[in-house]
Order: sequence, then structure tokens, then C-alpha cells
Amino acid sequence: MRLSRYFLPVSKETPADAQIVSHQLMLRGGLVRQTAAGIYAWLPLGHRVLRKIEQIVREEQDRAGAIEMLMPTIQAADYWRATGRYDAYGPEMLRIVDRQDRELLYGPTNEDMLTAIFQHSAKSYRDLPRILYHIQWKFRDEIRPRFGVMRGREFLMKDAYSFDLDEAGARVSYNRMFVAYLRTFARMGLRAIPMQADTGPIGGDLSHEFIILAPSGESEVFFHKSWETLRSAEDYAVDAEDSTALQAFVDSMTADYAATDEKRDEAREAALGDDLRQSRGIEVGHIFYFGDKYSKPLGFSVSGPDGSPVTPLGGSYGIGVSRLVGALIEANHDEAGIIWPDAVAPFKVALVNMRADDGSVTSAADEIYGRLSDAGVETLYDDRDERGGAKFATADLIGLPWQLIVGPRGLANGVVELKRRATGEREEVSIESALARLTA
Amino acid sequence: MRLSRYFLPVSKETPADAQIVSHQLMLRGGLVRQTAAGIYAWLPLGHRVLRKIEQIVREEQDRAGAIEMLMPTIQAADYWRATGRYDAYGPEMLRIVDRQDRELLYGPTNEDMLTAIFQHSAKSYRDLPRILYHIQWKFRDEIRPRFGVMRGREFLMKDAYSFDLDEAGARVSYNRMFVAYLRTFARMGLRAIPMQADTGPIGGDLSHEFIILAPSGESEVFFHKSWETLRSAEDYAVDAEDSTALQAFVDSMTADYAATDEKRDEAREAALGDDLRQSRGIEVGHIFYFGDKYSKPLGFSVSGPDGSPVTPLGGSYGIGVSRLVGALIEANHDEAGIIWPDAVAPFKVALVNMRADDGSVTSAADEIYGRLSDAGVETLYDDRDERGGAKFATADLIGLPWQLIVGPRGLANGVVELKRRATGEREEVSIESALARLTA
Repeated sequence: MRLSRYFLPVSKETPADAQIVSHQLMLRGGLVRQTAAGIYAWLPLGHRVLRKIEQIVREEQDRAGAIEMLMPTIQAADYWRATGRYDAYGPEMLRIVDRQDRELLYGPTNEDMLTAIFQHSAKSYRDLPRILYHIQWKFRDEIRPRFGVMRGREFLMKDAYSFDLDEAGARVSYNRMFVAYLRTFARMGLRAIPMQADTGPIGGDLSHEFIILAPSGESEVFFHKSWETLRSAEDYAVDAEDSTALQAFVDSMTADYAATDEKRDEAREAALGDDLRQSRGIEVGHIFYFGDKYSKPLGFSVSGPDGSPVTPLGGSYGIGVSRLVGALIEANHDEAGIIWPDAVAPFKVALVNMRADDGSVTSAADEIYGRLSDAGVETLYDDRDERGGAKFATADLIGLPWQLIVGPRGLANGVVELKRRATGEREEVSIESALARLTA
Repeated sequence: MRLSRYFLPVSKETPADAQIVSHQLMLRGGLVRQTAAGIYAWLPLGHRVLRKIEQIVREEQDRAGAIEMLMPTIQAADYWRATGRYDAYGPEMLRIVDRQDRELLYGPTNEDMLTAIFQHSAKSYRDLPRILYHIQWKFRDEIRPRFGVMRGREFLMKDAYSFDLDEAGARVSYNRMFVAYLRTFARMGLRAIPMQADTGPIGGDLSHEFIILAPSGESEVFFHKSWETLRSAEDYAVDAEDSTALQAFVDSMTADYAATDEKRDEAREAALGDDLRQSRGIEVGHIFYFGDKYSKPLGFSVSGPDGSPVTPLGGSYGIGVSRLVGALIEANHDEAGIIWPDAVAPFKVALVNMRADDGSVTSAADEIYGRLSDAGVETLYDDRDERGGAKFATADLIGLPWQLIVGPRGLANGVVELKRRATGEREEVSIESALARLTA
């Protein structure tokens, strides 16, 4: 993409109303623009990150055997009446009346609707187990939306719902999602710690939050120092079809102490001594097992193998997709701007033409751009007629993993400069060797 | 995907309230489920089609130089007040009041918001031209939602917005979208005819609807018989960077008569004589040039090359992504069910195991499934313990382009049956040759 034809409204000023660094950098870097309190338009660069994150989430859901579908944003109030949640949910639910005076709402979550949809078709034990998910915009009418996309009102969530015939099966579904979550966050380069959590309005008796560490986090968390190690998705390779291996793995992942403020265990903390760590954390995922909480009020049962009715047991599993954009920046930035992990970077390379007014520099940069594009390398080509300093500042601010700088002095010696954003490391290399590195 | 683990609630009964064939087949084929009047959940099979269509739309927008972003579904009423459309829009706009008594609405379209967003950052002639687009859910509170996803209330639309410095430039943007639309629909196997159209509430003086022919269409259309030829995307290959070639191409595409009911020209029709055709049509896309209709009330100007202010001229360009699912079925079905064009089929192959209770048939079918999956062929594997007749009926109903049938008699002779859904042609071929055909 040529920057001269792109829409990347970067800004030097730090917006006064943005309290945390991810919010500041998302506004300054032209990733989002606020359009109402707690509601954001995703500008082209931010949209690309959102889609990268969404795709990683999708791949890991699919890998865990969950099936993608898509529920609407607007729900009939009746779904919530049937489960008794309509009145209970409170003012965070955006309630709507249509032109025919029917009561609707903008879905904040989908347990009620999805259980009803699944109930309509699932009649036999052979229709279970199933995990269904969708990635859809939700709305929660927060009284004080803040921290940009981290606590917005309209937000993108992946929510999955499992249906099983018995508790053992429901535990397998839960464990599959548990592992999928560890893998999902690890693939984004995040260290997400599973912590026992309260179940809140979703209900149920088993729940984990997945929390990443950041000074701006909304809650205080306590954990064994073993969680300081950054793990990769390969460390979470376990066969989702093998329920015994799955349980053993989840047990090993929950053996070391990790708890949110509400779930602290003073005895365990005391026993840990120097191995105890404390930090602030950001919740990026939350999984729940709630049994028959939704199937029972809806009268949902299927015929079991012996013909007798069985009430399916359920769980739900959420990942804050749009929130992750902010969380990733909280975890990956420096004074100059964002440092995108490779897996979620909006483009891989910032190609900087230092002298757009110099024909030979421009023709060299154009050729490099063409070759990177042909090789399928996502490249943002700064071909604008601007000074080098402004271009460097923009490249650092938007944080693409690589910067490839083409200038007259280098070209005279047959070299370009390759900079790794994360480390700041710069190298002068030949054009061929830069291309080989970036297309590898 | 193994059907025994999928969520595909097909039904034999034709739903009483579904008047047109696409609506009937989408319900019967388990593609969607209605969750409120004019609002649908996209079940896994329907969701896959929706994403295929969305991706073709996206690729052709990108090819035309449009830049993807994503605006929220909920808009502040102020955007619409600023352009004077808030009161004018009428009861189809879903108006919402939040907990702080702020007036919001569920966006039915985005001219007002996007012009404001773009205005905020575009200050110079160098920031133009631009075409920005998003693919986002919209809501129009239809008084009588009907025809399933064809005239639903919550619907997925691709809407693009162009900004140019002068009329000649605006015409180039318009032409680019014109060609992108022809290509988009042709890639889906649709014959979409561009017709001069009224501009309605969007405003402006130049507009084309893209209409496909179907007996269930909402409007009567009239056209030269030349449009009976089905064209492919290759027939619409024109360099989007060459404005002269672009205009000549658009002129050639609008030379032959084609008009909706409101835009009929009796003199031209009379001159056509036997070459005139009449049909009912479904609108799948609509493009508008509206000049300064939105930039003027917003006071949007940029500094021109000589420093003097220039008011950008705009157009907007919509494709009904969710509506296309219905339109495609209207254009592609028979008595037995849907016949998906290859480009939008949810899976390429329906692999039918005729005897799931027979170990050797199942192991052959399992192996074929594994090899198709390894080759990246999207396969829905009917591994359920059901009779062959029910499996054939399901396969025909959901309309995947190919059916590969594995049964005991064939296997004894070393063959499987390969059926092309569109033609009904069946062939007995060896497993290897079937695999070679499907992976080619």
C-alpha cells in the first residue's frame, strides 16, 4: 500500500482525554477515531490489526472443534425474558423499541439466544456435544466508557457456547476452550495467565479469566513467578481429542497459584514466599461452565441413548477481540510508539523512501515495493514527499515490525538500511539481502 | 467437516410464512434461522456462504483501489443532524436513547459519519482522491420485512464512499466502482445489469442500480437482449488507472438500453422492437454520485494546489452482501434445492458415505475425506448413520457443487460415483480419478 494513497491520519499531539498509553497511541497512530462516547470507527490501519486478531481467534476456535456461525446484533427481548435475565441485566443493556413497539436490545452476550436456537434443532443425544461460536459486535452501555477500545460500549467479541450431555463431557468442552485460549494469546505474543474467577452475571461454578500483565490493568492479580516465562503456542500443543491428556494439561496449567483480587488465597500466598508476584492485569478472555442455567428455564432437553430426556449442560467462552488491540499495545510499546508483534502487525514492512523528489531513489524504492508486493509481503510504502524525520517518526509510531529505508547515500554504496522496530537494531545491507530477509 | 459433528438443521417441510424460493430453501437448508421479524441468525452453512460473498466483494473493492475500514453500527444522531438527514430519514431509522439520554441510531448507511471522519483529517488536495469502504451490519426498520434475508431489517452491506477534487475525478471514482461491481457479480456467476436509477434519499444526479433477473424480483425491468449473455469477470478487465479506457468501457456498458420501471424511455423501447426484453429484477448493488450534498452542509473543504479552498465531491456505492445470499439462490436452484455457483459454495464437495455401518465403506470414505482435507478441498462429509436416500436429499438441498458417493457396490468394483449438482450428471470413476478431478 502506498501511503500517498492510504488513509492514515497520524497526529503528534497526545489527546488530552486519553488516559492510558494504548488509547493515546491508537488515536495518534490513526488506528481509530471516536465517533461517540465509547464508540469507535476503525480506520484502515486499526482495522487491519483487528482482522489479524480475529483470524487467529477463529483459527484456534476451529482447531478446537468449535463451529462458526453468526448471530445478529439486535435481539428480541423475549429471548431474555425466557431465561429470566431481561429484568436482571440492568442499565448496561441497550434497550430499543422498534416502530411496531416491539422490545429489542443490542446483544451484550448470547447465551439466551443461542440456547434457544440450538434447542430448536437439537433433539437427540447424537446432536451433542457441540461448541458453536461467532465473532460479532456487542454493546454494553457502560456508564463511564474509558481507556479507548479497552472499555468501549460497542466492542467486538468472540463468544462460544458448548452443549454437552453430562458433566464429564462439559468438562472436556471447557478444557478444549481453555487450551484454545492459551494458544490464541500465545500466538499473539501475549503472556495470558488463566486465573480462577468469579462468574458474575453469566452464572455457574467454574470459571477462569485469562489475564495479561500491564500497569494500566483494571485489576490487581497475584501469581507464581513461573508465569513470568513467555510461552509459545507450541508449549500448548495437546490433542483436543484426548480428554485425559486434556485434563492433565489443564491441571498442570492451573497448578501454580494465580488469582484475581476477588479470589485470593492468603494461605497459598504465604506458602509461596518470594515466589509470589503481584501486578495489575487486563482481562482478555473469560470462560464459564454454568451447567443447566440456561437449558433448564428454557425446558431444553434431548432424548438420551435410552430414550429418556437429558438436559444439556453448557458453558460460554468469550474473547475481547477489539479489546485485544488495546491490550496488545499496552504490552508492546515504547516512547516512540507501538511495537506490533509479527503475528498481528497491520503490515510487515514500512518501506521508507527518504527522497521522493529524487528520481533514482524513487525508482529504487518503487522497485523494492513491487518486489515485496509480488512476494506477498504486506508493505506500507511511504512514498510521500515529506522529510525523512517525519517519516521515521510515523514508522516508529505505527510500529510495523520492519523498517526498510532507501536513501541516496546508501544507494550510492549499493545498500539500504533495515531496522527491526522491537530492538531498534539497524543494519546496512544490500537490496537483495534485505529482500531475502523480508520474504523468507 | 464431518456432518456428525456439524450443526446443519435441515428440514423437509416448506415453512408456511416463506413466500419466495430462496427464503424457503434458506430455512429448509439450515442456512439461517429467524430470531425476530426481519432478523436472522446465520447458521454455520449460511455463514460460510456469507463470508465467501464478502470476500469476493472485498477483493474487488481492493482491486479498484478502495481502502477498507470499519465504522460502528451505532451512530450519534449528531452526525445526521449536521447534514439535515436526521429528521428527513423517517421511521425506517432505528432510533435509540442510551442510559445518559443521548440520541443514537443504528446506522442504515454512512454518508454522514464517514464524511465527518474524513473531513477531520483531510486538509489538503494531496489527501484526495480516496475511496473508503466498510462491510458492516446495517439496520432499516422495514414496516413489512419479508423475503427472508432479501428484505430483512438487520443486513450486511458493503458501502464505499469516494472523495474527489473535481467532477472529472469524481467520475473516475464512479467508473471504478461501476467496473468493480460488474466484476464482483460476474465472479459469483451472476448476470447483473447496470440500469439508470433514481437516487432516492441518498441524493445526487447520477446513479445506477445493478439488477439481476429473477421472477421474484421486486421491480419490473426493461433491457436490450444483449444483456442475456452471461459474462465473466474477464470480460470486465479494464485498467482502473486509465481514466480514458475506464470511461470508454463504462460508456460501452451503458450503451444498450436497460432501465427500471421509474426510468423507462418509451421512444428507445419502441426503437428496440423485438430486441426489447422485460423481466422482474432484484437490486444487488446501487451506486450514486451526489457531488457536494454531504461536504457542503458539513463545511468540508481542503486547500487546493493554489491554496484556495476546494469542496470535495462525493459518491457512495452499496452492495447488499446478505441480500446476495438470497439473490444467488433465486438465480440458482431447482426443485431439489440450491445449486451454488462454485465461487460462493459453502463447501466444494458433499462426500456421502452410503453405509456408515459398514467398516470397509467407512474406512474408504474416511480415507477420501482425509485426502480431500489434506489437499485443502472444502468437504462436508456425511458420515452419519442414516439411509442413502436421506443423505442424497440433504446433499441436493444444500447444493454443494460436487457430490462424491461412496457405497459398497461401487467399492467392490473399485469405483465411486461423482455427481455434478448443477447438471445432475453422474459418473462412476476410480477413487484416484475422483480425487484428481476434485483437487485439480
